[in-house]
Amino acid sequence: MISWPTIYHVLEETVPLYVAMIVAYLSIQWWKLFTPEQCSGINKFVAKFSIPLLSFQILSTNNPYDMNIKLIFSDILQKSISLLGFAVISKACCVEKFDWLITGFSLSTLPNTLIVGIPLLKGMYGDEAVKLLSQIVALQSLIWYTLLLFLFEFRAARGIDTTSSSETANEEESGTPAPMRERHEEGQAKGVSARCYSAFRFLLVVGRKLVMNPNMYASLIGLIWALISFRWRIQLPLIVSNSIRILSDGGLGMAMFSLGLFTALQTKIIACGTKKMLVSLGIRFFLGPALMVISSYAIGMRGTLLKVAIIQVDSSPFICIVHSNTTVWASTTNVMLHLSSSAQAALPQGIVPFVFAKEYNVHADILSTAIIVGMMVAVPVALGYYFVIDHPRL
Amino acid sequence: MISWPTIYHVLEETVPLYVAMIVAYLSIQWWKLFTPEQCSGINKFVAKFSIPLLSFQILSTNNPYDMNIKLIFSDILQKSISLLGFAVISKACCVEKFDWLITGFSLSTLPNTLIVGIPLLKGMYGDEAVKLLSQIVALQSLIWYTLLLFLFEFRAARGIDTTSSSETANEEESGTPAPMRERHEEGQAKGVSARCYSAFRFLLVVGRKLVMNPNMYASLIGLIWALISFRWRIQLPLIVSNSIRILSDGGLGMAMFSLGLFTALQTKIIACGTKKMLVSLGIRFFLGPALMVISSYAIGMRGTLLKVAIIQVDSSPFICIVHSNTTVWASTTNVMLHLSSSAQAALPQGIVPFVFAKEYNVHADILSTAIIVGMMVAVPVALGYYFVIDHPRL
Repeated sequence: MISWPTIYHVLEETVPLYVAMIVAYLSIQWWKLFTPEQCSGINKFVAKFSIPLLSFQILSTNNPYDMNIKLIFSDILQKSISLLGFAVISKACCVEKFDWLITGFSLSTLPNTLIVGIPLLKGMYGDEAVKLLSQIVALQSLIWYTLLLFLFEFRAARGIDTTSSSETANEEESGTPAPMRERHEEGQAKGVSARCYSAFRFLLVVGRKLVMNPNMYASLIGLIWALISFRWRIQLPLIVSNSIRILSDGGLGMAMFSLGLFTALQTKIIACGTKKMLVSLGIRFFLGPALMVISSYAIGMRGTLLKVAIIQVDSSPFICIVHSNTTVWASTTNVMLHLSSSAQAALPQGIVPFVFAKEYNVHADILSTAIIVGMMVAVPVALGYYFVIDHPRL
Repeated sequence: MISWPTIYHVLEETVPLYVAMIVAYLSIQWWKLFTPEQCSGINKFVAKFSIPLLSFQILSTNNPYDMNIKLIFSDILQKSISLLGFAVISKACCVEKFDWLITGFSLSTLPNTLIVGIPLLKGMYGDEAVKLLSQIVALQSLIWYTLLLFLFEFRAARGIDTTSSSETANEEESGTPAPMRERHEEGQAKGVSARCYSAFRFLLVVGRKLVMNPNMYASLIGLIWALISFRWRIQLPLIVSNSIRILSDGGLGMAMFSLGLFTALQTKIIACGTKKMLVSLGIRFFLGPALMVISSYAIGMRGTLLKVAIIQVDSSPFICIVHSNTTVWASTTNVMLHLSSSAQAALPQGIVPFVFAKEYNVHADILSTAIIVGMMVAVPVALGYYFVIDHPRL
């Protein structure tokens, strides 16, 4: 049985995250300390420096040769089941079929492992869990986010966006590019005849977005360095690792602070309505872990490894891509313009899926709600799972 | 003799500080990543959260009952000699007499112990030096910065400001308060007849500024907690100290980043001209340590303690007050308006004496130059001293 001191130990690791978030929320709502433009300065610092350096640090200090193959396979299996499942469901409910595939996949399988997962699992299962999670982080940063971007771009390329013509006209007036409309028109003009060119352009767009993503670089370099470092047993000179640490040290606190700013600047906490909120939280906190249980059992995982695998899925309600498509950010109207008044606005950690969703017009209200409400209930739910799965039969 | 590995060890602690500063500089000058308004968001975060929490952490974890009385007395003696000396010099050179008293005192006796001093001295003399420095930090935050503020306010109250009437008119037009003009007029209107009221008002202004200073609060609370904690041997619960650490952890890097942003946004690096720059650096790097040597010898300090005392004076070229007089900040024109376009602008760590100097119109160009150039040469000069004072006779 899990004892109260254990619970308290987990809270010692997780409550500070909420404190940082609440301080940020109060600094906007009570003290009126930051303007939206100033917030975007902090958010940009987090997205461009803190988080990529944090990713590098986690990936470069964990042995990639000591991978847990079972964990990786069950991770891949979980994602595949989710994709397949939501593809079937989307097909069945004809409206917005690709939209729910993407949203469902994001919600059910892509938690914020780096920010919330690591402190939480460390409190529960110690440093061994951090080692396992670093593998999940590597897969997320390098494979799953890329896949997600592919899905969004594929949806846009197929011209099944639901943007109304008035909205695109508005975008044109504001002088910002409208990538979806462009690609949609292009698709209509050339038919199914210049497929090859379209495919090339599609890859170009995806490639360009990946190249502009500092977290992608940082993860890749971190992994490459880990492969070199653990192969030939060489370490970064202390002068270099200290230089990285001086900016990455505050990353966790800054990311939560940035999330607090995001929350404070939203006009509505539950933007998508209670019903959709419950559905999305259900996907996040029940379907996601359920898929992981199925996958892990299928692969043959048991014991602590299984528990870590389940709780990491459940650890946080939002995915974490750091992406730097600044023009697109500026073109998103509504809430985002409230957050930032500049074309050089920032892309805070954790809310970027929301920015993506805004850009591609895929359930942005659901993601915004899932980010905020989900964050609030993430640790209590994770603690609930922690109790439930502490059963000798598992 | 100091060995090369020792030097390298010191560099391991200090080079990262420069890296953070250079990254910030490049992010403005090369990558055009942040707008001035966004910079002020980052700076405000540093001034309002990172640095006060860092001060709290340093002060609350070091035993105030284990004070080194000799160090404290020689610190007080050094400040007194400096004040007296610059008072005599200012009296001798009739022009701007109070100005040089303040600038000389700031430059010669108030280094940035918290940010640069601690990593530098830790590299040189280990954790024992950190313990000694925490005493210097406490004195600085609670006594010397208050004295400095008193001096600035006293100068303003005596109506010896050199602000031209056109400037005050400009300030009036921009809708911001002009504290100096106000007090000057008041002094003229009432003569030396309502002295008592003036003194009360003077204390009120100083008090209000102190109350608005988050670093002052943090230092005071830190000291009080240390007095309680080390007396009754109680510690902060981990959940509280983790909550503080999550935001203070990145403080060092953020402060240096903020300084890099400040440097990048200046129109001129050497704003006061080469001659004044050399004088101010001379005061900073030779007169300051010389005064400390005299004071320490007089008090009877020898050995490592003396070395720490000397190098801490020399460790950084700018004083560090975190102050939150936002309206004043907005009223300063010229360089500061370049840095920030909002009335809610930020007050970055370390450059606040410059903001004070701007506010009270006391050698702002000298302080700006001393901050930037001084920072660049601080570690090399400190290493020079480290070599020189490593002599058995000291």
